[in-house]
Amino acid sequence: MTEPNTIESMAAAARRAGKQLAAQTGQARVALLQALASALEAPARAAALLEANRADLEAANAALARGELSPALVARVALTESKLAALADGLRQLAAMPELLGARQVHRELDEGLVLERVSCPLGVLGVVFEARPDAVPQITGLALKSGNAVLLKGGSEALRTNRALVELIHAVLGEHGLDPACVGLLEDRAAFRGLLECHAQVDLIIARGSGRFVQLVMDSTKIPVLGHAEGLCHLYLHADAEPLRGAAIAVDAKCSYPAACNAIETLLWHAEARDATRAALAELAVRGVELRGDPATVELAQRLDIQPATEEDWGTEYGELILAVRQVASLDEALAHIERHGSRHTEAIVSTSEAAGEQFVRSVDAACVFVNASTRFADGYRFGLGAEVGIATGKLHARGPVGVEGLLTYRWLLRGQGHIASDYGPDKKPLRHRDLEN
Amino acid sequence: MTEPNTIESMAAAARRAGKQLAAQTGQARVALLQALASALEAPARAAALLEANRADLEAANAALARGELSPALVARVALTESKLAALADGLRQLAAMPELLGARQVHRELDEGLVLERVSCPLGVLGVVFEARPDAVPQITGLALKSGNAVLLKGGSEALRTNRALVELIHAVLGEHGLDPACVGLLEDRAAFRGLLECHAQVDLIIARGSGRFVQLVMDSTKIPVLGHAEGLCHLYLHADAEPLRGAAIAVDAKCSYPAACNAIETLLWHAEARDATRAALAELAVRGVELRGDPATVELAQRLDIQPATEEDWGTEYGELILAVRQVASLDEALAHIERHGSRHTEAIVSTSEAAGEQFVRSVDAACVFVNASTRFADGYRFGLGAEVGIATGKLHARGPVGVEGLLTYRWLLRGQGHIASDYGPDKKPLRHRDLEN
Repeated sequence: MTEPNTIESMAAAARRAGKQLAAQTGQARVALLQALASALEAPARAAALLEANRADLEAANAALARGELSPALVARVALTESKLAALADGLRQLAAMPELLGARQVHRELDEGLVLERVSCPLGVLGVVFEARPDAVPQITGLALKSGNAVLLKGGSEALRTNRALVELIHAVLGEHGLDPACVGLLEDRAAFRGLLECHAQVDLIIARGSGRFVQLVMDSTKIPVLGHAEGLCHLYLHADAEPLRGAAIAVDAKCSYPAACNAIETLLWHAEARDATRAALAELAVRGVELRGDPATVELAQRLDIQPATEEDWGTEYGELILAVRQVASLDEALAHIERHGSRHTEAIVSTSEAAGEQFVRSVDAACVFVNASTRFADGYRFGLGAEVGIATGKLHARGPVGVEGLLTYRWLLRGQGHIASDYGPDKKPLRHRDLEN
Repeated sequence: MTEPNTIESMAAAARRAGKQLAAQTGQARVALLQALASALEAPARAAALLEANRADLEAANAALARGELSPALVARVALTESKLAALADGLRQLAAMPELLGARQVHRELDEGLVLERVSCPLGVLGVVFEARPDAVPQITGLALKSGNAVLLKGGSEALRTNRALVELIHAVLGEHGLDPACVGLLEDRAAFRGLLECHAQVDLIIARGSGRFVQLVMDSTKIPVLGHAEGLCHLYLHADAEPLRGAAIAVDAKCSYPAACNAIETLLWHAEARDATRAALAELAVRGVELRGDPATVELAQRLDIQPATEEDWGTEYGELILAVRQVASLDEALAHIERHGSRHTEAIVSTSEAAGEQFVRSVDAACVFVNASTRFADGYRFGLGAEVGIATGKLHARGPVGVEGLLTYRWLLRGQGHIASDYGPDKKPLRHRDLEN
């Protein structure tokens, strides 16, 4: 167990170790990620991981038998050889991605011998809290190492033994590369994580994954900036000219392929003229076992489906399961107004054959992701080609939407002169040149 | 007076008007800035501004006579024809800067007919609180209009009549360009600003300028993200090989050219071998009337200056006036440790003739701005060539250091498909292409 009173020293050690990590070359960090990938597949090390995971799974199955855990959660705890291979593959892909750390973003001569640069650098120390999946440990660690950040991890208690074994493996690889293992730490219980939320001076960013309520709780409990999304209330809008097959396919994918995901839709909006597309979508959704809740026009449209009436509360509910609110709108503008009022600025999509309608939707919706004729489920770091993601951000500052390596970086302004003083410049004095140089 | 209960509707109106502003072309926003610049110089309009300013100045002078205001503050309230010309010139420079709004940052084909873009967009509604200078009204408004954001302004009460006249002029120009004037609003008192801090749903970013205590108070009073710096505790370090003339010139510029500025230094650190440079710097500072507070080694070094002993508290104090703490360190590492412990991550500078020492300083200091052989007073949006600044940020997220137009933007991810669904892709299914296209 992590003692709460050791958290601050753990965070301070992570800060020091992170500085050492950040000082490594990009090449050295690539080699580190590749070694980590190989370690996950090395027979003896993989066996130790799978053994630790078996113990977690036994405990989880016992809890399942007592009705304390859901089958879905138990399934998430499981680690297999093929999962390890996929994780190793993910780390290798991340290793191969362009190096962003140390990139020069601005290069400007202010005057003779006075040169300004803006250079990317790590945030410093990340605190990440995530769900039961132990897969998250190597994934998040990979993003932290690639971006030169130290990271303190708090995973689900159901996977504690597996997470411990994974962090042990990571520590061994860090040690083999001459790096201080303190740059990756495991917080073993909630008290430890609560302690971390107090470490304002040591921790630069908290990344919170989990239910909206949990993320909100974290945001309310700390002065450290929190990256996460308290809600994923996404809409799909079928415009007047939506093709029935396309509309139905996107609706089913967006609702049914992973209903618990934050990028799954919670509300389907349909234009009064999109009767065929809407009927087709509702029929397909009902076949997949989706409970539909509709406004009067929707109930009337699909009388055979015996749709329950929606209440005002339904428009603001993130179900996270196979329930969908459905509402008719008189126009694209009415759909936009509904989304502006009820959306959580995560991902919003339109199905339409008209380019004008699609572009009006894109111009008007204020959300991290705005899609035309594509499922909301594409809102994902892997699918976007970021290599991986630590989460999806619905705030507007720093990083928005799926967050990969770039979202874990900040920058510093570096100015190198030869004794230059500011009082020499200004109106009626020397002018500054502001001549941009090559990056 | 702005009624507190109208603030929410004012913010909502600003939000709507901001959307209209953001939908304008870059060219239209450039024309708007140019028209605003011309308006500031138009004789009849300038006369109205100067008349309003005379009323503010009369009241300020009366308060000065009663001992309620300082001469420095009264001087800040003053607007003159030459100041108006400088403000107009600043707006024209801002108009001429490259258009950042709508820039495509990512352009990637995910699959045939499925194209991802990341496009910059405004934050939405800014709330900005600033000091007595009415000059800030056109400056901040210019940055907001250039970046497509609505802005609600709260200036110093000493300049209320001038600020009102300036916002009236801005409203007139907006109206002449067919734009809703609600995109620029004036909050007339503290109650109104406190009301704004409650408008989480309508306001995207608060920018707070003023004393560290005030900025901290704002940060503690709202759930809206706050951009600002609660402290500007900057250091200048004279390394062992610092040239006396250069060290003295930079120290004097960094402390004396504007002691109340956040980028002025509060502590001078000197290497035990930099005795000549330090003596030269201290002598020059004393001549300029700087009160010096030193550790024992400093007191001993400059016995003729009769330096008062510094207490532990001095190393953590942002004086904002002509007082400077001075401390000897045994090495560059000790200087770095002092800065790590006491610095506010704003701006830190070294004076050294050794490139190795300069580069070690640059590599090691975690601050928004890190300078070698240049005064900390260069940490400024105008001097950096950003055209203007809304403030300097010492947080690490979103924007760091001087914040110009770029810091007032965020982005959205846009995905355009032809009925693409996510379930078609993945292991053992179709791969995603992730082919970057030209921006």
